[in-house]
Amino acid sequence: MSLCGGLGKCAGCKIRVVEGSLSEITPVEQEAFTGGEREAGWRLACQAYPQSACRVYVPPESMSTRQRLQVEGRETDIPFDPLIGSVACRIEPPSLTNPVADAENLLGSAPGPMDFDIQVLGDLSTHLRKWNWSATAHIRDREVIAVSPAGSRPIGLAVDLGSTKIAGYLIDMETGKGIVSQAIMNPQISKGEDIITRINAAIQSSDGRTLLADLAREGIMKLTENLCTEAGVETRDIMDAVIVGNTAMHHLLLDLPVRQLALSPFVPAVRGELNVKARDMGLNFAPGAYVYLPPNIAGFVGGDHVAVLTAIRGEWGHSTGLVIDIGTNTEISLLDRGKITSVSCPSGPTFEGYHIRDGMRAAPGAIEKLYIGNEDIRYKTIDDAPPTGICGSGILDAVSQLYLAGVLDSGGRMLENAHARVVKRNDRLEFLLVPKQENQGGAEISITQKDVREIQLGKAAIQAAIAVLLETEGISEKELQRVIIAGAFGSYIDVSSAMTIGMLPSLRLSSFHQVGNAAGTGARFFLSSAAKRKTVGDFISRVKYLELAGTPEFSQAFTRACLLGPYGDHRH
Amino acid sequence: MSLCGGLGKCAGCKIRVVEGSLSEITPVEQEAFTGGEREAGWRLACQAYPQSACRVYVPPESMSTRQRLQVEGRETDIPFDPLIGSVACRIEPPSLTNPVADAENLLGSAPGPMDFDIQVLGDLSTHLRKWNWSATAHIRDREVIAVSPAGSRPIGLAVDLGSTKIAGYLIDMETGKGIVSQAIMNPQISKGEDIITRINAAIQSSDGRTLLADLAREGIMKLTENLCTEAGVETRDIMDAVIVGNTAMHHLLLDLPVRQLALSPFVPAVRGELNVKARDMGLNFAPGAYVYLPPNIAGFVGGDHVAVLTAIRGEWGHSTGLVIDIGTNTEISLLDRGKITSVSCPSGPTFEGYHIRDGMRAAPGAIEKLYIGNEDIRYKTIDDAPPTGICGSGILDAVSQLYLAGVLDSGGRMLENAHARVVKRNDRLEFLLVPKQENQGGAEISITQKDVREIQLGKAAIQAAIAVLLETEGISEKELQRVIIAGAFGSYIDVSSAMTIGMLPSLRLSSFHQVGNAAGTGARFFLSSAAKRKTVGDFISRVKYLELAGTPEFSQAFTRACLLGPYGDHRH
Repeated sequence: MSLCGGLGKCAGCKIRVVEGSLSEITPVEQEAFTGGEREAGWRLACQAYPQSACRVYVPPESMSTRQRLQVEGRETDIPFDPLIGSVACRIEPPSLTNPVADAENLLGSAPGPMDFDIQVLGDLSTHLRKWNWSATAHIRDREVIAVSPAGSRPIGLAVDLGSTKIAGYLIDMETGKGIVSQAIMNPQISKGEDIITRINAAIQSSDGRTLLADLAREGIMKLTENLCTEAGVETRDIMDAVIVGNTAMHHLLLDLPVRQLALSPFVPAVRGELNVKARDMGLNFAPGAYVYLPPNIAGFVGGDHVAVLTAIRGEWGHSTGLVIDIGTNTEISLLDRGKITSVSCPSGPTFEGYHIRDGMRAAPGAIEKLYIGNEDIRYKTIDDAPPTGICGSGILDAVSQLYLAGVLDSGGRMLENAHARVVKRNDRLEFLLVPKQENQGGAEISITQKDVREIQLGKAAIQAAIAVLLETEGISEKELQRVIIAGAFGSYIDVSSAMTIGMLPSLRLSSFHQVGNAAGTGARFFLSSAAKRKTVGDFISRVKYLELAGTPEFSQAFTRACLLGPYGDHRH
Repeated sequence: MSLCGGLGKCAGCKIRVVEGSLSEITPVEQEAFTGGEREAGWRLACQAYPQSACRVYVPPESMSTRQRLQVEGRETDIPFDPLIGSVACRIEPPSLTNPVADAENLLGSAPGPMDFDIQVLGDLSTHLRKWNWSATAHIRDREVIAVSPAGSRPIGLAVDLGSTKIAGYLIDMETGKGIVSQAIMNPQISKGEDIITRINAAIQSSDGRTLLADLAREGIMKLTENLCTEAGVETRDIMDAVIVGNTAMHHLLLDLPVRQLALSPFVPAVRGELNVKARDMGLNFAPGAYVYLPPNIAGFVGGDHVAVLTAIRGEWGHSTGLVIDIGTNTEISLLDRGKITSVSCPSGPTFEGYHIRDGMRAAPGAIEKLYIGNEDIRYKTIDDAPPTGICGSGILDAVSQLYLAGVLDSGGRMLENAHARVVKRNDRLEFLLVPKQENQGGAEISITQKDVREIQLGKAAIQAAIAVLLETEGISEKELQRVIIAGAFGSYIDVSSAMTIGMLPSLRLSSFHQVGNAAGTGARFFLSSAAKRKTVGDFISRVKYLELAGTPEFSQAFTRACLLGPYGDHRH
């Protein structure tokens, strides 16, 4: 699994050769490993090609499976009023005295004109006769999108298409109840883990865009098949689907141009909501089913953030506060008595464990929480497995704890004599979290000076974005009544740690709400409520988007925010 | 070219071997040729396979090309008010201060929400930048179906999909003016010339339906490409299309089930109008273009007849009369002061020259008109070419003339001594139209007793259908103020001949109007007028369909109508 798209730059695919021979070590690998590591057989899977039958050891941090994925979200508690409806039809066969056409016969007394999806008509006559003139018609708006055997259950699918994971939910479209939820990795990861690498892959070859779209579609279909298998239904039972994702994922899924997304002024191909026939997206649901994609707000604030806002909007009331969705790209909205202003900032993949030497995703064995005292270092790994690396929330804790312990100064500099665990390796300082001798058979795990710098950059982007947003809208930190933190990473972070280093405003802990995958919840809202779709366009048209990229305000705030310490301490 | 789908039954593919050897003569061929013909090398192309390199002579009557095709129709004279509109857009590029998405930028001040076809979005951002922010948006209803370079001309396509020929018309969608018209043979002919053979081909193998749909689509695309080449435009300039055809052609084009069409009670899969994305039909027009298919009336009265009714409706007023579209299947509507009743009857392919021993299509060399006196036989061939056979209008004339000359009695029996040209061959009587010695190098052309029987069956079906229709609706022949005869064959027949044998009611000649391809004209009306589409559903819902198949009234009327002589003479 590669962050860099196979260029050998992220060192995310380390493997160790146990048996057999591989191609010559490349310069990229020379760089990535110490001499000892090279002797021990460590290679990068993206650089090395087998020259014989091989056995290789793939360490957990190089695996793409078993990552902890956030699919829970919240149970929806809105009125169930979906856009699709199902009508049980029990009809008289046609006769010479009443030679009514099959489609018109099916709908019989249904009021007004009705369109039929052409693929539904392709089977209708055959099915009606096979099913002895008894069937269920599934209607969306005024279009018949499927006809199924009498008594079959219509299913809805909500998908949160993240750049790393794809989370899916099946809903019973008669009751609105959730049936099952699962997540899988986004197969686009093979073309790069971050959005910019993928956009480059999409525009650098003539079939790049199609390739990325195909990967996303295959991922969604695979997930859908898994969900349907678990629920004991068929993919053709899916009568309606909602897919939310950031603007780049939205475009890459739909095979839309992305070049303009990556270049100033960073505009989407389309902002408005889309209703696309599933078949036009290569998705194999009910014959005439549509996929609904909510509107985007801007090039880097997409439909997933709109879904988050939709999920929390009903309970928000008139208070003032922030909605933050932390990821490789972080979206932040300020809600102030009905007014909404959104910004986005590139916070990097650091919080997902990348660009960190011993970083890894939130998989078993990842250190996710830690405490650093003078004598005492305690940590907790996911599933209490032996430690193999450190994930996003663990790194955040580490930097915060190192700052509090005086190992890092406010500039983020590691102080050589501040702690017994500070060691020098290759002339560089690092903090030894797990010494080799404490980790039976496992590797040493450290926080390096460079790791701290990466965290500083990520947290500074978020901190600066919040600062400029508040300043522009004339809201002070103290006026914030609540902060909603959405998204997988946001669910696991220690808010105190984030406040300690200044990434989040210093507020009472009770002001923070870590709501998990609110984007998925919002997607389910759109599935359950025609009203939510009807009103979202108007709602979003009132969102003010503030472009931070390239503005001097953001640059200045960013420089200040690179310092560690509580938010606001360094404001001018 | 085969009527029977290659079963050897229609003898429509006679060839003569000049050089080389073919497979053994089949029993079917034994039946089809006399001993002399077999010795001369005559074979059926559907039965004989080459065993070596061969040279064969294909007589004109076995060729499928150069048939005279009716594409003229009438110039439309209705208000031009199409469903699609084009908007010239000259827009400001987005900027950091106004980072508007490309789709929303394009439409700018256009009122209200607008949908974008997903394929339009696939190119929009790239095109807008290439075209320097200047483009034309093509809008259907509230959907952007194409974006083309500024100044490009939107084109409309009207198609009359006949079972034998496909006629197409290109319209300038800015002015409503016709640009070009052409016709080609329907490639489905390879699967049988009549509808029932094709329906059988569609249902007898698992891929039969798809195969027939593909053939129709290929035919339409080929025709469209020819039209576009002639007009100097591209197929992607086609912003709107209308296709009319009988119900079977409609279903076979759309890959809809047809089994129930061929079995009592002969119901269509769908009666209502359809709007289908061209791409969902495998047609390659503007990215988001739709094809409009008007409603069908019944299993054997399709959208082509609706198009005919639409074409003549505006000028019809309140009179009482008939609209007749003669073909392999003949559709007849009685219009009586705003009330419309439709019937259909299987009149067979006889009028197109099939099932007639020396019959052929209306191609050069076909006898299309003739006069038979006691001493004097005169005929006219198409293009005044040497006679090679006799086409539908010629056969109709022949039977009428033979009846008037006393060669046929009212029962249709040929009388041995009634004329010098009546000869006996193989114990059967035939009337020698063109003796071999009069036709330099060509074959003898006769009307056989069996040919007369075929014509009797065809004309009896039409006559009986009219009779039952009038009787059921309580209208007498004398109340008919006009009779519209639509379609290619109907344009060429001699109305007097048709009256003489009773196929058409005996009215003043001025009551008859041979309007040519009114179905094509109707298709163009639908292209030019959103109002025509809007009202057709309501209009058609008021049409009463009278099923004749299997009714005793029709059987009795049919038996009576087998007699020759003016219509009504034999009414009970």
